[in-house]
Amino acid sequence: MSQEQDLSAEAGSSKTRPRRTKQRHAETQASGQLHQLPWQTLKNPYQPIEIINAEQIELIHDTSMRILEEVGMDVLDEDARELMAKAGAKVTAGSHRVHFDRHLIMDYMASVPESFTLHARNPDHNLHIGKNFTNFGTVASAPNASSLDGGRRAGNQTDYRNFLRLMQSLNILHFTGGYPVEPVDLHASVRHLDCLADCVTLTDKVFHAYSLGRQRNRDGIEIARIARGISHEQLEQDPSLFTIINTSSPLRLDQPMLQGIMEMSARNQVVMLTPFTLAGAMAPVTLAGALAQQNAEALAGIAFTQMVRRGAPAVYGGFTSNVDMKSGAPAFGTPEYVQAAQISGQLARHYKIPFRSSNVCAANTVDAQAAYESTMALWGAIMGGTNFLMHGAGWLEGGLCASFEKMMIDADLLQMMAVYLQGVTVDEASLALEAVKDVGPGGHYFGTAHTIARYKQAFYAPLISDWRNFETWQEAGSPTAYEHAHRLYQQILHTYEPPALDVAIREELEDFVARRKREGGVATDF
Amino acid sequence: MSQEQDLSAEAGSSKTRPRRTKQRHAETQASGQLHQLPWQTLKNPYQPIEIINAEQIELIHDTSMRILEEVGMDVLDEDARELMAKAGAKVTAGSHRVHFDRHLIMDYMASVPESFTLHARNPDHNLHIGKNFTNFGTVASAPNASSLDGGRRAGNQTDYRNFLRLMQSLNILHFTGGYPVEPVDLHASVRHLDCLADCVTLTDKVFHAYSLGRQRNRDGIEIARIARGISHEQLEQDPSLFTIINTSSPLRLDQPMLQGIMEMSARNQVVMLTPFTLAGAMAPVTLAGALAQQNAEALAGIAFTQMVRRGAPAVYGGFTSNVDMKSGAPAFGTPEYVQAAQISGQLARHYKIPFRSSNVCAANTVDAQAAYESTMALWGAIMGGTNFLMHGAGWLEGGLCASFEKMMIDADLLQMMAVYLQGVTVDEASLALEAVKDVGPGGHYFGTAHTIARYKQAFYAPLISDWRNFETWQEAGSPTAYEHAHRLYQQILHTYEPPALDVAIREELEDFVARRKREGGVATDF
Repeated sequence: MSQEQDLSAEAGSSKTRPRRTKQRHAETQASGQLHQLPWQTLKNPYQPIEIINAEQIELIHDTSMRILEEVGMDVLDEDARELMAKAGAKVTAGSHRVHFDRHLIMDYMASVPESFTLHARNPDHNLHIGKNFTNFGTVASAPNASSLDGGRRAGNQTDYRNFLRLMQSLNILHFTGGYPVEPVDLHASVRHLDCLADCVTLTDKVFHAYSLGRQRNRDGIEIARIARGISHEQLEQDPSLFTIINTSSPLRLDQPMLQGIMEMSARNQVVMLTPFTLAGAMAPVTLAGALAQQNAEALAGIAFTQMVRRGAPAVYGGFTSNVDMKSGAPAFGTPEYVQAAQISGQLARHYKIPFRSSNVCAANTVDAQAAYESTMALWGAIMGGTNFLMHGAGWLEGGLCASFEKMMIDADLLQMMAVYLQGVTVDEASLALEAVKDVGPGGHYFGTAHTIARYKQAFYAPLISDWRNFETWQEAGSPTAYEHAHRLYQQILHTYEPPALDVAIREELEDFVARRKREGGVATDF
Repeated sequence: MSQEQDLSAEAGSSKTRPRRTKQRHAETQASGQLHQLPWQTLKNPYQPIEIINAEQIELIHDTSMRILEEVGMDVLDEDARELMAKAGAKVTAGSHRVHFDRHLIMDYMASVPESFTLHARNPDHNLHIGKNFTNFGTVASAPNASSLDGGRRAGNQTDYRNFLRLMQSLNILHFTGGYPVEPVDLHASVRHLDCLADCVTLTDKVFHAYSLGRQRNRDGIEIARIARGISHEQLEQDPSLFTIINTSSPLRLDQPMLQGIMEMSARNQVVMLTPFTLAGAMAPVTLAGALAQQNAEALAGIAFTQMVRRGAPAVYGGFTSNVDMKSGAPAFGTPEYVQAAQISGQLARHYKIPFRSSNVCAANTVDAQAAYESTMALWGAIMGGTNFLMHGAGWLEGGLCASFEKMMIDADLLQMMAVYLQGVTVDEASLALEAVKDVGPGGHYFGTAHTIARYKQAFYAPLISDWRNFETWQEAGSPTAYEHAHRLYQQILHTYEPPALDVAIREELEDFVARRKREGGVATDF
């Protein structure tokens, strides 16, 4: 009678599930309170998974060095090529091609900080980047937004702002990864001004500036400075803004990206160098080859940050996945994706620099596929030792859509990971020998002193997961996780309040944005 | 222009997704062929995750030994107590209580084999249990079945048989974990005869016999012997059947379970000892305490297998999770579940015996929750170093329901894990330096010789995941993973063919079942 079948059935009976009723969800909805984990600095106490051995890491390194020595990179900006030439790279006259000697690369890699603090305007929200710290951010750069009731629509300011409000409200999210959705209803010449001003007023966490021409980077840096109320000199001491630099794979650095490195690194701000090396398309069809190319591109870009300014903070970004060779569709959250993420982590640790990964999926809706692909990607990132998780919450459709409901489900997953990373206490009290003696064979632990002293905080309480029994769940209308997530995000928006902001800072910010708009923003012919 | 946003958008354009059309799914459906991975023996090449250190493992071990020494177990069978007394345990006269000295336990633990072969009637489907081998099985013992069209219904023979057919058809499933669903339309006195005969005729893989009274075990062993066409003596050389033994936590072994150990271990068949220690209910509210109790119960049961027969194969089962302390509902696939699974793996390796874990969730439907809870549990199991994954495919509702669609989604997940466990080749050809040289900066790899030679087998091709772009997916009716899984399981059932079975074996099996039915099967008053 004590087979798993019977135990499971028993666990569903009134004996061991005394209060398995509608209560939990009803409480959450009635109170309007979000029961979530507090803001926390996360550390990963576990040994990252190693997919390949040290000798194989050395082979990837060696191949990437031969790529930079024998093939080189196309560097599509004259100023950048000039800096590279001065730094010792072999620039071919009358060409974009630059070759890098491995000793040159490794000499510049040596000055990248192993860890640094990334400052938020609220110092409680400063981030530690590197070592075994990890930080979670939002989806970024989706051209579309979607919600269960509103469907899928082109990115717009209303949705953009609502994503920022959710990000600010969810303690598990440490930073805004970029524009969660691209507000295409704002003119491109001034979009960055409005969007970054929103990052400062609707949130008080770390944010990102796109590298789309020097002036946008300069405006972003100025907004970060104003937001923190500090001097230009202080800003150069304190990394306070980050930018994602994607190579244009294979082996090419576009002008806006190069300008982004030059602007950001010169001011000691954070560059995250992330090649977008999809195996079979922009990179070799083999993971080892795609990773060798990723490594060549990443190291060339990161070395360039040090050519611009020794010691400027930089992060190794891994984004290698593959395309479906039948359709050309990019694959995310697959076994190859996870392997590539974890090998990327090994490479970043090999160079002793922080590692950025992502929580990504290819699903078109918030279904089982979205969840298993994202959970796979998340394990790839976390047990790859990521220090900085881009696209941590809300990513759908290979990045073409930001979903409000997916953001809630991801927040639940990220909270689970945070609890997983807390480790397990093993000491006399937790080993509970006295409680076992008290209860004895055949008893139960519901009412024991050991349980009563601990039950409220004992276990993770999910945001989304519905643990009611089937009958109660069915009576409630058989809600899916998608529907729970929908209710939850609306509830959060309903109770959102903007973080405090000093009046002088707000005025300086408004003045700056107004002035820059009067000046016409930026040219949009890049 | 090469921000992630733009790269993603670009990847969706005709340039890099040249054939992202309806083609892939259409092909699959039209051909009626299931494109799946071949049957394979899986090894986990990675270092399992260690949640706690060696000293903490020793503390859990020590506490569990003190539980067995100072509290003891209730052993609800007189024959078992007699055997234990003869073996050196302290049996209290006139009581069920048995105390075990730690040296006694560890002496018996020392004779448990570190690994063994579990024989199937088709020798190609023999399983290696232990070391770093891993094996995946079906859901077991669900009282209900469900499908998207038929809804949720009480377990029945038709559904039972269809689950067996799916199990046989899916190469990634190595064994039947028990009755995937309990066919309650068969009388309990003869149910095991019909069900186990089905395991032999509808499948040729390893199967399980429930420990629900000595006669059922004996019938199961005889059916396993007949299926393999071997002598009684040979059967005692070859483990060919397994049984799950659950303790009745806390600290109690029921009569049918004890009889199961006595019958199975005496014949050198496999006992998987799995306490069902839900923290906060049948075990202390702390994970360390629940695991100490799990360890005490597991080791008492496993030591008993060795008291019955030295060297009999036994497996350490970990099933510790927790209940939601507000509702009493069991939680699965949570951070605590994953931690407990991985610590259980550490304990099993500490004793150098094989480790069994599970793929479980609490969700009521095949939604995002079902997927993320299962994927979490799966990572807990795989990176906990599991050798034997129970409930690997089809589990829903905390085990109260077996879902056809969930079985398909889990099969996709298990295939992904199998590819993940294959590791990554790093050698001159895969490092692809010549291909990188050929393509050069700014090119693409679609038509290169390196790609053409490899693209067909390069990457995992999923069973379920829909990678079409949003527009094509929407035109196709916006199918969810649940719907894809529904079509897929029906397609497999449509093309299922039973495995070959020797006529003499079939006749002997039918004769045995008929005779045992004439004898009335087994008493059902246990």
